[in-house]
Amino acid sequence: MEVLRITTTRKQEMLDITPHLRELVKEKGWREGILFLFCPHTTGGIAINENYDPTVKEDILNKLEELVPSKGQYLHREGNAHAHIKSCLVGIQQAVLVHNGELALGTWQGVFFCEWDGPRQRQIWVKFHEDNRGKPEGV
Amino acid sequence: MEVLRITTTRKQEMLDITPHLRELVKEKGWREGILFLFCPHTTGGIAINENYDPTVKEDILNKLEELVPSKGQYLHREGNAHAHIKSCLVGIQQAVLVHNGELALGTWQGVFFCEWDGPRQRQIWVKFHEDNRGKPEGV
Amino acid sequence: MEVLRITTTRKQEMLDITPHLRELVKEKGWREGILFLFCPHTTGGIAINENYDPTVKEDILNKLEELVPSKGQYLHREGNAHAHIKSCLVGIQQAVLVHNGELALGTWQGVFFCEWDGPRQRQIWVKFHEDNRGKPEGV
Repeated sequence: MEVLRITTTRKQEMLDITPHLRELVKEKGWREGILFLFCPHTTGGIAINENYDPTVKEDILNKLEELVPSKGQYLHREGNAHAHIKSCLVGIQQAVLVHNGELALGTWQGVFFCEWDGPRQRQIWVKFHEDNRGKPEGV
Repeated sequence: MEVLRITTTRKQEMLDITPHLRELVKEKGWREGILFLFCPHTTGGIAINENYDPTVKEDILNKLEELVPSKGQYLHREGNAHAHIKSCLVGIQQAVLVHNGELALGTWQGVFFCEWDGPRQRQIWVKFHEDNRGKPEGV
Repeated sequence: MEVLRITTTRKQEMLDITPHLRELVKEKGWREGILFLFCPHTTGGIAINENYDPTVKEDILNKLEELVPSKGQYLHREGNAHAHIKSCLVGIQQAVLVHNGELALGTWQGVFFCEWDGPRQRQIWVKFHEDNRGKPEGV
């Protein structure tokens, strides 16, 4: 298991971690298989969506804030109930394919760490499951 | 990695891809393991829910449209911000068990490609991770 | 594949199944790998979030009920359309890492079965994919 450490700088944000993941895949020499990404936090999440036009992530954050307002009425007294709920809606994990030694994503896709109770130090746990059949024969 | 190619015919729809997946499992002779389904698009998604009564998927699409209206106010100017948001809420991937050479789903479950910005040509990336222990000994 | 059988006791609830999963990991002697959890029901789901303060799960259930009311107007006539929709939003599966023979979760995380159409007998399908590289050499 690898641990990707990131620092968020705003109360709520979607941080593009695709470059970190691409680097990790290269550095580890992973070739063919599935990469599991797991967020061990209960007020964050992991999303895969467009990372080309930055307004997309703003729209996502805005709509989530409209549906689940940070200043709403909640039973949990720590002021971050909204963040727990957003985490449940978006999810805390993703699995991404690795093909030919590269992260296999769609043209417009990026992987984002979602912060809803920042700024904070955060982790993403990364685990690679190699596909043995992906190796060329005789190697 | 296999690529399942599908064509959506409406602006928003949930297309039952379970038969395609069952066929693929048969055709490839996959026996025991986990099947990963990944949607490489940022305005689509993959859901697993009831495929018996067709009104269920209509209710899902209607509620999503009520919560995230396609004609709402968004920053992203391409007119499909709602589709990106719905994709984040429902998710773009699923993992399904394969057992005894069959897709293992609950009685009422089907796998749907969710289209929120159609009609379009779409892909689903499929990867099987075989469980070696599932093979009978000596085979 | 293992089947975890649980009994829900309320119409809507989030049932902490973390202790059952920890037990299963111990009992089976699973050491290093990924544990797949799959809910074969269309009106339930699986979430990972805080299991320390019980109000968190109440806030999650309350917000979902506000966004997708059980008494709303739906086409599906069985009275549980809201449950199908909630299942789509939260999701029906999770993958959790197993490390050193223990379920690897964040400090505040627990795994919950989400019931939205109870009380019922429910199942969670559990499959472990072992990481062969996790084994000490020579063993």
